Amino acid sequence: EDLKKQEDAKSLDPYSSDPERHPVLRVKCKKPFNAEPPPEILGDSYITPHVLFFKRNHLSVPQVDPASYRLNVEGFPGGALSLSLEDLKTRFPKHTIIATMQCAGNRRSEMNKVKRVNGLNWGITAIGNAKWSGVRLRDVLLAAGFGPEVAKWARHVHFEGLDKDVTGTAYGTSIPINKAISEEGDVLLAYEMNGEDIPSDHGFPVRVVVPGVVGARSVKWLGRIVISAEESSSHWQQHDYKGFSPGTDWKKVDPKSAPAIQELPVQSAITVPADGAVIDRSNETLTVKGYAWSGGGREVVRVDVSLDGGKTWQVAQLRSGDEGQPTEPSPPPGRAWAWKLWELTAPLPPEAEELEIICKAVDNSYNVQPDTIPPIWNLRGLLSNAWHRVKVKVTED
Amino acid sequence: EDLKKQEDAKSLDPYSSDPERHPVLRVKCKKPFNAEPPPEILGDSYITPHVLFFKRNHLSVPQVDPASYRLNVEGFPGGALSLSLEDLKTRFPKHTIIATMQCAGNRRSEMNKVKRVNGLNWGITAIGNAKWSGVRLRDVLLAAGFGPEVAKWARHVHFEGLDKDVTGTAYGTSIPINKAISEEGDVLLAYEMNGEDIPSDHGFPVRVVVPGVVGARSVKWLGRIVISAEESSSHWQQHDYKGFSPGTDWKKVDPKSAPAIQELPVQSAITVPADGAVIDRSNETLTVKGYAWSGGGREVVRVDVSLDGGKTWQVAQLRSGDEGQPTEPSPPPGRAWAWKLWELTAPLPPEAEELEIICKAVDNSYNVQPDTIPPIWNLRGLLSNAWHRVKVKVTED
Ligand SMILES: [Mo]
Ligand SMILES: [Mo]
Repeated sequence: EDLKKQEDAKSLDPYSSDPERHPVLRVKCKKPFNAEPPPEILGDSYITPHVLFFKRNHLSVPQVDPASYRLNVEGFPGGALSLSLEDLKTRFPKHTIIATMQCAGNRRSEMNKVKRVNGLNWGITAIGNAKWSGVRLRDVLLAAGFGPEVAKWARHVHFEGLDKDVTGTAYGTSIPINKAISEEGDVLLAYEMNGEDIPSDHGFPVRVVVPGVVGARSVKWLGRIVISAEESSSHWQQHDYKGFSPGTDWKKVDPKSAPAIQELPVQSAITVPADGAVIDRSNETLTVKGYAWSGGGREVVRVDVSLDGGKTWQVAQLRSGDEGQPTEPSPPPGRAWAWKLWELTAPLPPEAEELEIICKAVDNSYNVQPDTIPPIWNLRGLLSNAWHRVKVKVTED
Repeated sequence: EDLKKQEDAKSLDPYSSDPERHPVLRVKCKKPFNAEPPPEILGDSYITPHVLFFKRNHLSVPQVDPASYRLNVEGFPGGALSLSLEDLKTRFPKHTIIATMQCAGNRRSEMNKVKRVNGLNWGITAIGNAKWSGVRLRDVLLAAGFGPEVAKWARHVHFEGLDKDVTGTAYGTSIPINKAISEEGDVLLAYEMNGEDIPSDHGFPVRVVVPGVVGARSVKWLGRIVISAEESSSHWQQHDYKGFSPGTDWKKVDPKSAPAIQELPVQSAITVPADGAVIDRSNETLTVKGYAWSGGGREVVRVDVSLDGGKTWQVAQLRSGDEGQPTEPSPPPGRAWAWKLWELTAPLPPEAEELEIICKAVDNSYNVQPDTIPPIWNLRGLLSNAWHRVKVKVTED
């Protein structure tokens, strides 16, 4: 009887079987569920607990039975490979990486303030860092028949989720073959997040993790992998998740003129203090905290912080681990998938009644963040990585 | 007798046997010779002729006899390998790439205007694009004994030039092993530039070409290669060619706090019109030209041009070849070593008496150039890649 009721509800509302979520999350959209954590909590842990990790769902969360789950690997001359969850766990070596995942729309709200853009109004926390375990995509592609003959024509690997819209279209996307097949690319088919089964909001039982690349390519509830000579023809590959010039509007946008976003540019943000915070002048010092990350496995090598709106800069301390805990070992070159947390404690500037605090990061290709948002503004509000600025008031008490 | 005179002169002045140079070059320093071409000439050719290619010599040009030339490859358990020029040309496959080389100090003069920096006052043309042919460094390392055992400890490949200072110290530097050994890294030991023997100013008879990486690692007049667990201990690896925060001065600089520059950030500049040019209002349109490039094999995907100081932006046309000539084929992903030339023809804005023209490039990791110079200022004037700005006057005639 209960089951019957549930099924009725589901046929009316595909979101009725979505999981419970942590009440501290800031909800951007309920159906599909999209939410991000408060900045000061995100910045507190080097590894983001899954309940606090931003949720970015394009559709309702599919209910997948792990016993009957099958991953289909297609497009190979020898035919398709069908793998159960058990196959994935027992037939391939387990591989673990720490990797930051960032939504293409992280920090969109700042772009929205410049001029209206299209998309969920994300703050600065559509980003998180987790420990992902699973099998290497490379190993599965080799098992499916990847070799010198296939390498001659294969250029892309497509991923399709088990999340489907009312017309039956699954969320789908693709990545270039060199990222997919390279040992150093570290692309995972992950079945664990932070040492536990992947939670349903994050892709149970199996999701893709493409480290160094925009979150949109890390397909959750993975159902199908296809090797191909072409990019995915999906909406999300061909029309969405591309960057355009600030002068491009919806009338003149030509999606073919821009490449699909893969590697993301260098990014950082201030998680503490919050914008609008009030600081007592009796504090002799001010502590500023945040995160910094760059795409493509490029390591963040420096974060500069200004307390005077960009006139002078101080260098923050970087951390690859929690305070007082042992730090994660340095990654091999080109494989810095994880963010760094940073912190600066500096004398509170005397006399100032308001401070404009700014951070900007530098990666090991010495790429930097742009100063301002308007020149990188784009109609979808993607790739918002200008300097992050917060204003705080200093009061006598 | 003549030989005697020459030798006497040389002992007095090590630069007396330096080659002739093209008179159009703008000389930054005579001894050692450092010079760059006029912007409008550089921007005219997709492939930079060697006479116009910027010269960046740290010392005098060594006179190398190709018949007795030996390249020593050291550090391997099986002992050193000594290769003649003939060996290089006959024992290894010939490989050709088109790659842009950029000095770390390109555009330093703009940084100098903000606040005095230390180094040659380069304009915007300490950059060039050439066709380089030679052998892959990878092939030579394999011939010298690189294999799984060596891979366990080898982390860097050192290069030493045959150019030596008065104390006998050769110019030297190193690159990470993964760049050196990877097939996709395309690191060459080049003996040809634009289809001819490498000219003496560019490293005759053999130079390194590390595409996507700062020019300082592409050692000329290559004499010695050493595989090592450590980075080069040379001045140029450990103390020079590093980036620091704008707040870092000579008193507090700690060279160990920053990584050696390898991959360079995204870059672009305007080669036409020149700063200060005067344009007749009877012209209905204005044509702006320039170059754009990014390090690490990242392809430039867009150049935005503003005629109004950054308020509005138009998208330029990109070219991978000379005007009216067939374009070079697209590079494989991650191996876009060559620059793009770009051009925008737009209506001359009515009424404006002065235009501030700006360009900024975007690469396929969607990294962008920063808006302004002061926040990336550094005491050595390196990595100067803010938006390039030129001002022109519009006059009635
Ligand atoms: Mo996203
Ligand atoms: Mo340089």
